[in-house]
Amino acid sequence: MTEACDLAAVEARRLIGTKKLSPVELLDSCLKRIERVNPRVNAVVAMCVDRAKAEAKAAEEAVMRGDALGVLHGLPLGVKDLEETEGLRTTYGSPIFKDHVPNRDERNVAACRAAGAIVLGKTNTPEFGAGANTTNKVYGPSRNPFDPARICGGSSGGSAVALATGMMPICTGSDTGGSLRIPAAFCGVVGFRTSPGLVPAERRPLGWTNLSVRGPMGRDTADAALLLAALSAFDARDPHSHPVDPASFRVPAPVDLSSLRVGYSVDFGGVAKIDKRLRETFARRIKHIAPVFKSCVELHPDMKDADECFEVIRAQNFLAGHLEKYRTKKDQLGPNVVANVEQGLQQSAEDVARAHARQTQIFRAYQGLYDKVDVMIYPTVSVPPFPVEQLFMDQIDGEKLRTYFHWLAPTYLITLTGNPAISIPCGLEPTGTPFHLQLVGPHQGDFRTLSIAHGLETHLQDDKETVRPVPDLKKLSV
Amino acid sequence: MTEACDLAAVEARRLIGTKKLSPVELLDSCLKRIERVNPRVNAVVAMCVDRAKAEAKAAEEAVMRGDALGVLHGLPLGVKDLEETEGLRTTYGSPIFKDHVPNRDERNVAACRAAGAIVLGKTNTPEFGAGANTTNKVYGPSRNPFDPARICGGSSGGSAVALATGMMPICTGSDTGGSLRIPAAFCGVVGFRTSPGLVPAERRPLGWTNLSVRGPMGRDTADAALLLAALSAFDARDPHSHPVDPASFRVPAPVDLSSLRVGYSVDFGGVAKIDKRLRETFARRIKHIAPVFKSCVELHPDMKDADECFEVIRAQNFLAGHLEKYRTKKDQLGPNVVANVEQGLQQSAEDVARAHARQTQIFRAYQGLYDKVDVMIYPTVSVPPFPVEQLFMDQIDGEKLRTYFHWLAPTYLITLTGNPAISIPCGLEPTGTPFHLQLVGPHQGDFRTLSIAHGLETHLQDDKETVRPVPDLKKLSV
Repeated sequence: MTEACDLAAVEARRLIGTKKLSPVELLDSCLKRIERVNPRVNAVVAMCVDRAKAEAKAAEEAVMRGDALGVLHGLPLGVKDLEETEGLRTTYGSPIFKDHVPNRDERNVAACRAAGAIVLGKTNTPEFGAGANTTNKVYGPSRNPFDPARICGGSSGGSAVALATGMMPICTGSDTGGSLRIPAAFCGVVGFRTSPGLVPAERRPLGWTNLSVRGPMGRDTADAALLLAALSAFDARDPHSHPVDPASFRVPAPVDLSSLRVGYSVDFGGVAKIDKRLRETFARRIKHIAPVFKSCVELHPDMKDADECFEVIRAQNFLAGHLEKYRTKKDQLGPNVVANVEQGLQQSAEDVARAHARQTQIFRAYQGLYDKVDVMIYPTVSVPPFPVEQLFMDQIDGEKLRTYFHWLAPTYLITLTGNPAISIPCGLEPTGTPFHLQLVGPHQGDFRTLSIAHGLETHLQDDKETVRPVPDLKKLSV
Repeated sequence: MTEACDLAAVEARRLIGTKKLSPVELLDSCLKRIERVNPRVNAVVAMCVDRAKAEAKAAEEAVMRGDALGVLHGLPLGVKDLEETEGLRTTYGSPIFKDHVPNRDERNVAACRAAGAIVLGKTNTPEFGAGANTTNKVYGPSRNPFDPARICGGSSGGSAVALATGMMPICTGSDTGGSLRIPAAFCGVVGFRTSPGLVPAERRPLGWTNLSVRGPMGRDTADAALLLAALSAFDARDPHSHPVDPASFRVPAPVDLSSLRVGYSVDFGGVAKIDKRLRETFARRIKHIAPVFKSCVELHPDMKDADECFEVIRAQNFLAGHLEKYRTKKDQLGPNVVANVEQGLQQSAEDVARAHARQTQIFRAYQGLYDKVDVMIYPTVSVPPFPVEQLFMDQIDGEKLRTYFHWLAPTYLITLTGNPAISIPCGLEPTGTPFHLQLVGPHQGDFRTLSIAHGLETHLQDDKETVRPVPDLKKLSV
């Protein structure tokens, strides 16, 4: 029997609106699930159960009164622990902030509450979001629901695990080098890296960089779109923000897959190192799904010098966000953050200008691909999930990687372009963990890719080889 | 008697559309005016008269056939010499490119042609647009139409002079530190610094910086709006670009001035140095126009450290655009470009991150002003036009300035925020050259400021003290 907490967010919201599911009942179901599986996977960290219960009760009353209801009315929400929540501990995964309780919600949290969501707790993240193993000195590691000895990905790892295990129907995330897409890929859920400004952020230290964006996660694309409808808005405090109509993508539009021209690349022309097992799975899946499209051709973007670009521009973020802490509290910072700051300190203004100029060339050339195709498909990750004790992957197929984050190349190369990217499940890998496709659409402001992902996702559900994998909760239960 | 070349662009376009003015007749009138006054002011440089004549003839035929006509149909266009024009010499004001003839139009030139404009010639600019005295080693100085011994401002100086003297009805421009607004202010025309992405640019070396934008100039705001309707579009090659409907601002909407809350600041709380003569004129004009608004209060934005920010971020542009030339052809570069590159070479990546972070804080705080007011008003320039032999202004009221471009502070401080800014004439200074107000609107993507400027401009025409000044062509004629 399906428990309320296993319902898709869209379905739960529908049942709430039609008075067939009470927000109180849904919250109770989520709480029970958290009690059952969270001790094993450690995804949900700080919680505000009493406030959530009071809000669920109020949400129920609003339904019964016949109030106008927001798009997320009555849905328990997990908020990534990089995002500030009023009255609820927000640590950014850092011991420096282990007792930090903000006195206000940041914009996107407030937007979700305004849409009727009930903040239930924070989801775990690596220290200041650095890296894709969701572990930190405050809360320890979050674990993969398909294999708790292994990483769940990150930095939005807690959110991905909470969704995959039914602990919460909607969760927020953010993405610099793949932090929405990678944990989605390791946990079999959906992460949507939006284009800059679609989900405005008022706290990014560098307003004009395109690297860091907020975005939705969900068990499927429709749930992610629902959350996106609450998150997106115009906000003058984000220089990338521009007027937007959330109604236009709240429900993914129908797409005729047979009319689509698809391009694919397993490794960006060799710039990304990809584990040979994943290369094989990717080739097999592309072959399997190709017939559904109008055309499906191998096509490699020009990513020359893209690693260097990303390293320099990423280091700018760390200098802006963490240099002061590095200078005054270095002993309280983890190795990833320290590595990024120190990399930045070795760079010149000339390095920054050259990186930004090369990024611009990569961006412009990348847009040219979409003269030939409607969507590009890449793998989301370069390796299967590794043991949680390993902070990052330092080699692939015997080749040593250049940085602690180079194993994230399939996602951070796309970050450089600013194009929207969505990671969707496509069956299992031989390792027994989910395999994902990363769909990348044309130019900033594009929404059609969300619809294309939804259409493909629907198609993939009809096939045993590509159906969305679900973790075995029995093995996770305490 | 009014000559055709003196007609407002909007009026000329209307007469062309109603078959009362032939594009051939208009072009001939412009050519005669150029012949008459250009030798004295040196604003129009390379020209393509034969092609323009052929296009004017074709434009006339299109009218007579009853073809659908673009918004600029039959209007002679001046293109700033930083912009690439197919088959027409494009020097960027640099001896390195003195014989450079591009084989294609850049996007905004092509967009104007597609809207029916007839490219008649290039308008002068300082070397690579550096500085606001429009002079270079290829073409020499452009001169102020109100006093040819003095500068016309820059870097879109040739365009401003061509408009003010009736040589061309529409001209393009661009703006980093004030290059659309300052020449407009010295020549008594209108320059509109658009918000980033509204006029997409496919050649900016740094895609994500907000400093450099393209924009329209015109003899008045309605003419600028007409040109903007042709220039603006979505283009995937500019990361700031987003969907836009040019029809929404082609004709400025009516605005009730008496409902507007206005803020003003003569010197940005002391951060900009302003010549005491201009301070007095500004105070007098604000007092004069204040009664027309709902409220008009002094309000200073927080621009602490803004000079340093701008210098570092501006230097990034020069490193990206000119470092290679500096290293291989330094002897062929002028002092302004060399100074900017050398400033950049002394900076670290940490300097860049700090500047960008501070810019972001300034930007966010600036948006908060618009909780209190609908529009901000500042002076456009800090000093009256100085002799053309002087490359830049190095002191104000006896105080030495920190850089060759610090006298542009009233405009470059606004550049940092990314907000739209429009410079409109407001009578004469005691020096006999135009005085301008710089209107700055809320947040990127705002168009209402154009309408507000139009409403105020209309009001100012009814008053001898504030009417748009017109240069005395008799004194400029050869």
